[in-house]
Amino acid sequence: MPKIINKTVLITSVSFGSFLLGSYYEKYIDKLNGLPQTIKKLPGLPLYGTVSAATSFSTAPTNTGSRVSQIMKFGFPGYDNIRSFDDYVLSYDRKTKVAHWVFEHLTSETVKPNKAVDRALCNFMSDESIHKYFRSENTDYKGSGYDRGHLAAAGNHKNHQKHIEQTFFLSNMAPQVGVGFNRDSWNRLEKYVRKLTKVYQNVYCCTGPLYLPKKDVDGKKYIRYEVIGANNVAVPTHFFKILVGEAADGGLEMEAYVMPNTVIDDNTPLSNFQVPPESVEKAAGLLFFDNISRAKLRKINGKSN
Amino acid sequence: MPKIINKTVLITSVSFGSFLLGSYYEKYIDKLNGLPQTIKKLPGLPLYGTVSAATSFSTAPTNTGSRVSQIMKFGFPGYDNIRSFDDYVLSYDRKTKVAHWVFEHLTSETVKPNKAVDRALCNFMSDESIHKYFRSENTDYKGSGYDRGHLAAAGNHKNHQKHIEQTFFLSNMAPQVGVGFNRDSWNRLEKYVRKLTKVYQNVYCCTGPLYLPKKDVDGKKYIRYEVIGANNVAVPTHFFKILVGEAADGGLEMEAYVMPNTVIDDNTPLSNFQVPPESVEKAAGLLFFDNISRAKLRKINGKSN
Repeated sequence: MPKIINKTVLITSVSFGSFLLGSYYEKYIDKLNGLPQTIKKLPGLPLYGTVSAATSFSTAPTNTGSRVSQIMKFGFPGYDNIRSFDDYVLSYDRKTKVAHWVFEHLTSETVKPNKAVDRALCNFMSDESIHKYFRSENTDYKGSGYDRGHLAAAGNHKNHQKHIEQTFFLSNMAPQVGVGFNRDSWNRLEKYVRKLTKVYQNVYCCTGPLYLPKKDVDGKKYIRYEVIGANNVAVPTHFFKILVGEAADGGLEMEAYVMPNTVIDDNTPLSNFQVPPESVEKAAGLLFFDNISRAKLRKINGKSN
Repeated sequence: MPKIINKTVLITSVSFGSFLLGSYYEKYIDKLNGLPQTIKKLPGLPLYGTVSAATSFSTAPTNTGSRVSQIMKFGFPGYDNIRSFDDYVLSYDRKTKVAHWVFEHLTSETVKPNKAVDRALCNFMSDESIHKYFRSENTDYKGSGYDRGHLAAAGNHKNHQKHIEQTFFLSNMAPQVGVGFNRDSWNRLEKYVRKLTKVYQNVYCCTGPLYLPKKDVDGKKYIRYEVIGANNVAVPTHFFKILVGEAADGGLEMEAYVMPNTVIDDNTPLSNFQVPPESVEKAAGLLFFDNISRAKLRKINGKSN
């Protein structure tokens, strides 16, 4: 059996354990690709760890250290190349040149637009904290036909100019279909998430790309995605959002969405994109809200658990 | 600018810095895909950090802690999900269900076959240190037509039964074309690496998969690879080996190879697969031998540096 080397490795290993799980992912993913807009829900959810002790805290937007603990209260989905900004946390995939995930903590206070904040002052900037070999640049997107689509939505960070500006780092972007996706249904999902801050005291939101397999004519499964620009920035086939809403009484509810990176009929109800959270975990190689026992969730995708 | 959260993140961030680099990867990768068996060499190599203080050590195969320091003497290529075994170190990609890289330290002593060691006693085993969601299983390979191809070669670890057995964890495997690749040219490369222990006092070898883009008929670049079994184990399009040989006088020489995961004419000289190391780094999202300033290397791919 492999041994753990040191503290770093120990932490990267926290997310590995053995759990009793079903094995319906294969069937699901075929359905997901076949029916990207009407995804079937599947019964049964795995059990995870235990609920972390609930702590109450106030929002202190400029204190990054404690803000990170707030944002990541329920656990890191993975530990690869973590960057923390003032109001969101990101894990960067140096292979795809797109983040693995971004994590946000939203409340009615943090999403309240401040009149002094001006989105027009924000510029898409390359993230120089990332080695030049692995950094996406504005030139990669130019002429590609894709939007520089925010993962942590700009609209979630309109309370401070610095916060919204930091969502414009290219490490927070992925190539997204513009009309019909980024500017429409995906935006609808982002607005829905912001509205949840009226329902829950705290909303925790994890967003990221997916590269999903599809059965080809030869009967075999293939993952195929475009890469753009000199840096070969990956164009995800799908995007996910997994959220947990924490009610005033401490009750927790989870919702998980997967949307294909393509033109979507704007009349499609958001609930059509709901998926079992573990299907996203397997495809993304991540474990979401690992500090929450799934059995303790009051609802998953709006249904009593 | 993003801020570093804690020690873990600090370590994962070590490999990010700003270096003066060329930008010929795009051109290279097109050539690589067009000419998988006759890869052109490109001039110019980036400068990296500084040489770490040379330390002398003896081989202590059963003491994993110090063995890891030996193996990883010149730096970790990345820090995602590290597992350490008794005679090699591995970084696991939970998304592809194949390692990012494996690292070995070979000497004429460590590769010397021990008569008491019997490869026939070894079984391919699933690696239970990896969460069930992300683990490849023998059933994934069954009927796929692909070999369970070793990344850390079994033949490099014939000095101890435990060492060779640990190379049979499925976390050390990738789906490889059998006849014409795994059993032929790739095996030739593995044997060549072992032979280098007669030339150098120490050989450091990093091996891993690549998923390289290709231009399609629409003029756009796509990454496309098969995934096999219920766990969607990725079939890499190519494999790399990057090695550093340390001579008795401390002189360092580097060689970098990329081979397509396909039937290769067994008469093709290994030197045809040599590539600029940085082309592999960009595609893999890794930095190899980061503790060695490339300017201090005596030779790269057999040519004076």
